[in-house]
Amino acid sequence: MSAWLLPDHIADVLPSEARHIEELRRDLLDTARSYGCELVIPPLVEHLDSLLTGTGEALGLQTFKLVDQLSGRSLGVRADTTPQVARIDAHLLNRRGVTRLCYCGPVLHTRPDRPHATREPLQFGAEIYGHAGQEADLEVLQLALACLRVAQVQALQIDLADVRIVRSLLAGVPLDAALLQKIHAALAAKDAAELAALTRDFPARSREGLRALPQLYGDATVLIEAEKALQGAPGLPELLSGLRWLGERLQGVRVSYDLADLRGYAYYSGMRFGVYTPGASDALVRGGRYDEVGAVFGRNRPAVGFSLDLKQLVAVVPPRAPKAAIRAPWNESHDVHAAIAALRQAGETVVCVLPGHESEVDEFHCDRELVYVAGAWRVQPLGGAAHADPITTKN
Amino acid sequence: MSAWLLPDHIADVLPSEARHIEELRRDLLDTARSYGCELVIPPLVEHLDSLLTGTGEALGLQTFKLVDQLSGRSLGVRADTTPQVARIDAHLLNRRGVTRLCYCGPVLHTRPDRPHATREPLQFGAEIYGHAGQEADLEVLQLALACLRVAQVQALQIDLADVRIVRSLLAGVPLDAALLQKIHAALAAKDAAELAALTRDFPARSREGLRALPQLYGDATVLIEAEKALQGAPGLPELLSGLRWLGERLQGVRVSYDLADLRGYAYYSGMRFGVYTPGASDALVRGGRYDEVGAVFGRNRPAVGFSLDLKQLVAVVPPRAPKAAIRAPWNESHDVHAAIAALRQAGETVVCVLPGHESEVDEFHCDRELVYVAGAWRVQPLGGAAHADPITTKN
Repeated sequence: MSAWLLPDHIADVLPSEARHIEELRRDLLDTARSYGCELVIPPLVEHLDSLLTGTGEALGLQTFKLVDQLSGRSLGVRADTTPQVARIDAHLLNRRGVTRLCYCGPVLHTRPDRPHATREPLQFGAEIYGHAGQEADLEVLQLALACLRVAQVQALQIDLADVRIVRSLLAGVPLDAALLQKIHAALAAKDAAELAALTRDFPARSREGLRALPQLYGDATVLIEAEKALQGAPGLPELLSGLRWLGERLQGVRVSYDLADLRGYAYYSGMRFGVYTPGASDALVRGGRYDEVGAVFGRNRPAVGFSLDLKQLVAVVPPRAPKAAIRAPWNESHDVHAAIAALRQAGETVVCVLPGHESEVDEFHCDRELVYVAGAWRVQPLGGAAHADPITTKN
Repeated sequence: MSAWLLPDHIADVLPSEARHIEELRRDLLDTARSYGCELVIPPLVEHLDSLLTGTGEALGLQTFKLVDQLSGRSLGVRADTTPQVARIDAHLLNRRGVTRLCYCGPVLHTRPDRPHATREPLQFGAEIYGHAGQEADLEVLQLALACLRVAQVQALQIDLADVRIVRSLLAGVPLDAALLQKIHAALAAKDAAELAALTRDFPARSREGLRALPQLYGDATVLIEAEKALQGAPGLPELLSGLRWLGERLQGVRVSYDLADLRGYAYYSGMRFGVYTPGASDALVRGGRYDEVGAVFGRNRPAVGFSLDLKQLVAVVPPRAPKAAIRAPWNESHDVHAAIAALRQAGETVVCVLPGHESEVDEFHCDRELVYVAGAWRVQPLGGAAHADPITTKN
């Protein structure tokens, strides 16, 4: 096995893509900051029980385990940053009011999420703690859309759902975990025959409601159909009007409702959403409300947020033209050093041609060069002859 | 054990420090870019043999191991990024000419490097491949200093050394690994008595040279003393004049020479350096030439570079004042949404006060508020009465 072969679903990010990711990273963090989100940097590794308590088994299977030589305890490499941020909100910040947090860093997965997914997503996310009302849901949705717009993702489509709809339909039905699992699977697969079989002995209201769910997907007319089809489920009118309220306030995006959607059921406690764009095989952004996530840390605050993978995002947004650079000669004179320093200070990339490498092709796209003309160092178009102004330096 | 306790030497980075680290990160990456360094993002995990081949045992002990469920093979979480970048230069870019690369990302250590060090440094570094001449050494030194300056580190001191000096003094002396190790330890401890004992049976030139080394620490006069004290060691005049050439070209920094310094001996192949500042217990930056590092990947290119830990750096630089934010009311009107969007677009942080949270203390330092006065939304000093201009929006 050659020393340069990487594990499957693990890859280097090479210069042009890395630059693009770095630009997107800054744009997303700046957008989150403009909404008042404070950046936190949780650690890559934690005690396994802190990482996994209360987050469901799926995350446990996704988490790489290692042993801490200092303590002998089991550590995990984070597979998701949200439980860490909930811990920070609950214990380190310990604020009573609204807290908006964001983060951006790598996570590791033991297995890829999708056939061509990386096992090392670069996860960016933002979260609002401490406000149970829908205003926080709306702000998170608007921030997620603002992030995708600043990344220049075209043709956004958002799917809104609420895990409480299924919970409401199942309220009072005696169920074991295995049957619940099968119902979830049938809903996810929109498998009407299987659903009919599984719910045969359910009370009429639950049975009819669950059977109707797989068709309740589409634009706002779905909400009207649902009012009839799911009649009598406890709390349903409020859940539907909550979704309508959110959907009506989202602009520049196609809004769909998917009332059977249960993805992340173990994690989310209310509204959830996914944002899609043509060309991406999976949702670019996933988010929603997870009011219970901080409970294991002793502080069950309302929480709503979203996350995305920058490596997935960069693959679906138009590439940005690299900023062109300036070639400069390697030279011992003070004047040329001062000119180069002044150009760099002004934000230019200046590539010094090291002695003996004059005929190499520049890896940076150089469109200008620093040349000594008429008694001064000037930047001119590469190979050009027009005389430019001398570089002004602070001496 | 409580769920919120982190492993020893592992910590969350909370908002004010995280913001400062993010600002430094951008400044360092932009500075490296202004020198023509291209960003790469190597993966967090690799096959253990790729990570560790040819890098010495010390890195092996520092590296967390885990098992790849997909292949059953051993993986390591990187403890240092340089071998990965050497692999990228050797195999993925595979260029013939000069390549300048930089990177910034977390690494993990099984044990802390120093008593209070983190086990999760945020490593930033830059490297030049493909040029064996001292011009590349100088450019790397200048870039390292430029990075510390942009971070506002005060009172820089640089230690220059060259691992070839000890190698030259030991040339032709029959040595086993155990004795070599003892000599290195005695040199590192500047233990004259131990050195005298260890070198008792060495040829006079090696013996006297090695015994003189611990005193050869200080300003440029050290180089003159070394010419006499180390006389006859092969290649020595060139090594000393090389160090002098570099030292004379560094500006705004106190330059010291430490000819007995062997730190990173297994790794470096020539010039090496450390940059210090008062208040930091260890070097902020370490770097040097490591021409052999790409050999295991089949391409032994000249290489010189440096790295630093942003978490160590942020602790010794003056804090930056946070940008003040604007409070805005939560409101359904289109006008206020447009005003908020325009302010955010212009780079402002606008914190919406969610309903019911009006009396909370802002976590962001808000010095202004968005208020509706005289028929328009205006930004005013918090609690102030002066009428400001209406917010201009693009409608």
